[in-house]
Amino acid sequence: MPTILGQNQYGKAECRVVKITRDGATHHLKDLNVSIALSGDMTEVHYSGSNAHVLPTDTTKNTVYAFAKEYGIESAEQFGIDLARHFVTSQEPIHRARVRIEEYAWQRIAATPPSTGADEPRHSFVRTGQETRLTQVTYDGEHWEVISGLKDLTVLNSTNSEFWGYVKDKYTTLQEAYDRILATEVSARWRFGWTDDGQQPPAWQESYEQTRTQLLQAFAETYSLSLQQTLYQMGSRIIQHRAEIDEVRFSLPNKHHFLVDLAPFGLKNENEVYVAADRPYGLIEATVLRDGREARIPVDLTTL
Amino acid sequence: MPTILGQNQYGKAECRVVKITRDGATHHLKDLNVSIALSGDMTEVHYSGSNAHVLPTDTTKNTVYAFAKEYGIESAEQFGIDLARHFVTSQEPIHRARVRIEEYAWQRIAATPPSTGADEPRHSFVRTGQETRLTQVTYDGEHWEVISGLKDLTVLNSTNSEFWGYVKDKYTTLQEAYDRILATEVSARWRFGWTDDGQQPPAWQESYEQTRTQLLQAFAETYSLSLQQTLYQMGSRIIQHRAEIDEVRFSLPNKHHFLVDLAPFGLKNENEVYVAADRPYGLIEATVLRDGREARIPVDLTTL
Amino acid sequence: MPTILGQNQYGKAECRVVKITRDGATHHLKDLNVSIALSGDMTEVHYSGSNAHVLPTDTTKNTVYAFAKEYGIESAEQFGIDLARHFVTSQEPIHRARVRIEEYAWQRIAATPPSTGADEPRHSFVRTGQETRLTQVTYDGEHWEVISGLKDLTVLNSTNSEFWGYVKDKYTTLQEAYDRILATEVSARWRFGWTDDGQQPPAWQESYEQTRTQLLQAFAETYSLSLQQTLYQMGSRIIQHRAEIDEVRFSLPNKHHFLVDLAPFGLKNENEVYVAADRPYGLIEATVLRDGREARIPVDLTTL
Amino acid sequence: MPTILGQNQYGKAECRVVKITRDGATHHLKDLNVSIALSGDMTEVHYSGSNAHVLPTDTTKNTVYAFAKEYGIESAEQFGIDLARHFVTSQEPIHRARVRIEEYAWQRIAATPPSTGADEPRHSFVRTGQETRLTQVTYDGEHWEVISGLKDLTVLNSTNSEFWGYVKDKYTTLQEAYDRILATEVSARWRFGWTDDGQQPPAWQESYEQTRTQLLQAFAETYSLSLQQTLYQMGSRIIQHRAEIDEVRFSLPNKHHFLVDLAPFGLKNENEVYVAADRPYGLIEATVLRDGREARIPVDLTTL
Repeated sequence: MPTILGQNQYGKAECRVVKITRDGATHHLKDLNVSIALSGDMTEVHYSGSNAHVLPTDTTKNTVYAFAKEYGIESAEQFGIDLARHFVTSQEPIHRARVRIEEYAWQRIAATPPSTGADEPRHSFVRTGQETRLTQVTYDGEHWEVISGLKDLTVLNSTNSEFWGYVKDKYTTLQEAYDRILATEVSARWRFGWTDDGQQPPAWQESYEQTRTQLLQAFAETYSLSLQQTLYQMGSRIIQHRAEIDEVRFSLPNKHHFLVDLAPFGLKNENEVYVAADRPYGLIEATVLRDGREARIPVDLTTL
Repeated sequence: MPTILGQNQYGKAECRVVKITRDGATHHLKDLNVSIALSGDMTEVHYSGSNAHVLPTDTTKNTVYAFAKEYGIESAEQFGIDLARHFVTSQEPIHRARVRIEEYAWQRIAATPPSTGADEPRHSFVRTGQETRLTQVTYDGEHWEVISGLKDLTVLNSTNSEFWGYVKDKYTTLQEAYDRILATEVSARWRFGWTDDGQQPPAWQESYEQTRTQLLQAFAETYSLSLQQTLYQMGSRIIQHRAEIDEVRFSLPNKHHFLVDLAPFGLKNENEVYVAADRPYGLIEATVLRDGREARIPVDLTTL
Repeated sequence: MPTILGQNQYGKAECRVVKITRDGATHHLKDLNVSIALSGDMTEVHYSGSNAHVLPTDTTKNTVYAFAKEYGIESAEQFGIDLARHFVTSQEPIHRARVRIEEYAWQRIAATPPSTGADEPRHSFVRTGQETRLTQVTYDGEHWEVISGLKDLTVLNSTNSEFWGYVKDKYTTLQEAYDRILATEVSARWRFGWTDDGQQPPAWQESYEQTRTQLLQAFAETYSLSLQQTLYQMGSRIIQHRAEIDEVRFSLPNKHHFLVDLAPFGLKNENEVYVAADRPYGLIEATVLRDGREARIPVDLTTL
Repeated sequence: MPTILGQNQYGKAECRVVKITRDGATHHLKDLNVSIALSGDMTEVHYSGSNAHVLPTDTTKNTVYAFAKEYGIESAEQFGIDLARHFVTSQEPIHRARVRIEEYAWQRIAATPPSTGADEPRHSFVRTGQETRLTQVTYDGEHWEVISGLKDLTVLNSTNSEFWGYVKDKYTTLQEAYDRILATEVSARWRFGWTDDGQQPPAWQESYEQTRTQLLQAFAETYSLSLQQTLYQMGSRIIQHRAEIDEVRFSLPNKHHFLVDLAPFGLKNENEVYVAADRPYGLIEATVLRDGREARIPVDLTTL
């Protein structure tokens, strides 16, 4: 046969699971979107349609819900580890499992009058709607790779951004800018150094919160001459402050805010009125690495 | 001619305007999406294509940006009032203007170390991503109609919701529920009693914040036997507490969270593990009115 | 109580039903998204949460699937009529039913070698992806209202469009255009004169195809001085050629294609290279009526 | 410094260009969405913000529009080649260019009465709305890599699909199926063997049309025991019939159509009435290769 089968994987994508944990009248909520991808000894199902090695995608979905009960959801990372380990260790033909999880955050709704005691019901939530937290856990039976991150975190500096001194060729018409809005919708992934069951795993929840804070503060505090510079500051700040992280990759659309020309109306626009543009947008992507480590996060960031 | 022209309107939709106001090192930000619809003496442009009465939609867009400079953006409502008044009073063929605005909220990013004085830069923001604030201002040269509201506010109660005692016909298979998740993505519009320049206008910003709080608290505090009951509680709470509002309409998708059957796996699901479903969804819509007032918010809520 | 209940309705939205009809080896496919809204004697469920008058939304969903089997899906309109009649006539508290349907079109995939006989399998389809067909059927136990239409039909004329002679105020900067691209994404609704079971109903399928053709040809053949003129031509052509239709409403975004200024690069752009813009866009909306009929299609077109 | 810079690239994403070519009264239309990504000697802009090596993303956008005039758009692939070559050969710091293009297809609107001669205007188009054609061209100054493909092509077989004989573990509840609907939304990429200016390039337009036909016919004609088998048939058919293509990768969501249980209503569902589900969905991904060639299409398919 002139054709052969290359890399392949299968599983159930976008299993939406909500887990409620009741601590008396105080409820806790985890809201995840889980996607499973399995690979291994799967040649025959492609060649002949024999499913003898195929655990149905429906079963992988069932497993997500059963594990939410059996193991709970302490963090997206730990839940992904539990699932990936299960598929690789319980099914001989499956040699590798990749679990991707999106997590949606919720805040409590404060009751009225304000809380007066431990027994007041606390079961009401509003979805925060800000960034979506991400994790991807991959396991091959020996080594772990955990890449966490976030998407849809939109940030803006209304000053302290310039852009000048660039190359000018025959197609260049852009004017230099000495005080512009810098805005982007952050998509970031960070890879943990943890790869082995023998190592102490990171404190996943605290790691996320601290990494997010470093990222935001680096964005806010960088006086920016280019979005690349801001990106590098965000990445290196994370590498410096978070020992558990070896590599960070960003995909940063430059959400252009163009100063509106008000001169035709006899008005002067002193960096006050901007049009927020949709398309096209600059797109800046790069990896920032701990020295001596290898880059493994793919160039194109994806979530499902 | 056997055909005639009915209601018509035109304008520029989705003008994205961002306004920065600088108060020393502290910047303030307003982020709006403004849509203009004008109507009046416009028969001829439909019949013959004569544009003699047509102010171009491009001009209505320019006006949005110019007004952001000339009048500032104190609130979405006031900005809509300024714009609507301008079009109706400055162009003889235009008899009615409707301005719809979406407003996106931003929070400040805290710098590190924490703020130590008035001169520390405060120009960094993160988009909150929660609900989108809405307003629609209509003016016919005499009377004002202001309808504000919000969309995409997702809320969830993890208990205190039941559903039973309903009609059962030959197509009914639903089991009664005595403890279920109740979740919805609130789309709400509220109409102000203010209609005349001679009246004192509401404090738009405070009104929005208070109305949103009443809505959330009513959702959290209602022990619900049906989503209709919760809707009515949210609406009547707003009418009772906000004298400036005469009418509220809600469109509430029942975002079903189905309890997963874990029995086949030997597990008992004690209201812990749910699947968050997408489609289909229940859709509950109703108007709640101050007694003696007339309903004017359209049955179908729209934003652009 | 100072608050009262206004218009209200409830039901299941977005019931996705696919119906396969087998005629030997030739299969036929209908692919619908059905949304039910019921209203009537529903005050008590809002006030007290009593569901004694409430047929569950889950039951309305079941009914959609059962009716696909019992009555088949000859056309979206007929299916909507069957459903609306059922709810109003079988449940005493329900006084009015509104059924909205989106229909997705599919084409057959031709096998290879080309069809050679009646027994060759014909069960393979590709979704056309063009416009979505719409219908809304409303029944109050006496009268019918059927409004059909389409959305997402994107059309473009690369010439025969001008725009000049418009009003110029202090905010006008637009240059007049004597040869421009005219493009829009048609959203249209048309109301049938049929209102009574005693009248002969239209041939729904043929009516849709002919109306769509009239609309497209009017777009193609109108030398346009304004999008309003094109809109009116599309509407009046439908009214003139389709006796079963009394009223048409359009919502036409002017999908701007701006001529790119290539002069800085020493190039002349003779109406060749355009940028297709996203936002903002002109939005032109109007109703075209058969003389003597009353306008009943709402100003804001909605689909779900 | 403990951190270093890894892979990085930048450019303008989503440049929407529409090109009209006039051949007398007959117009031709090309509608593309072009994204540029450049990389090379770009360390300094990340470290210090110096833009001395940075051709602005605004310039890359201008180049897209200028090239549409200077070189025309014969095919998406040729246009991508022209652009990629320009950036790498004209700017010393740029060592590699990747151009991604989405192409939207349009059909002519037939005028009425039907065409009677060469001079009848032919300038009216309707967007087909089916699949989006894709290409990605990468050039490093020596070698070319061209990967074309499509997305959003939704196909369905209403019979000739089974699924049984799979692994059953403790979480398996799925029933075996001997006649089911098989539907998927094809996302495919195929890599051309052409890598060198010295080789004769493929006939890009004909290659696309033929590859798409092979893909559709393989889907229609495969009696399927698993979606993996169908995937492999589509891929190997392309490899066998299209000598210019060395590798194909598919990402195929299994768009589940579940048979509705009508038994509670006293009805028998003989593979007639299905619910089209949204989430979760099976996701089947694999590469099919010409024997002896190396796989280079990334595991995760992306478009922008």
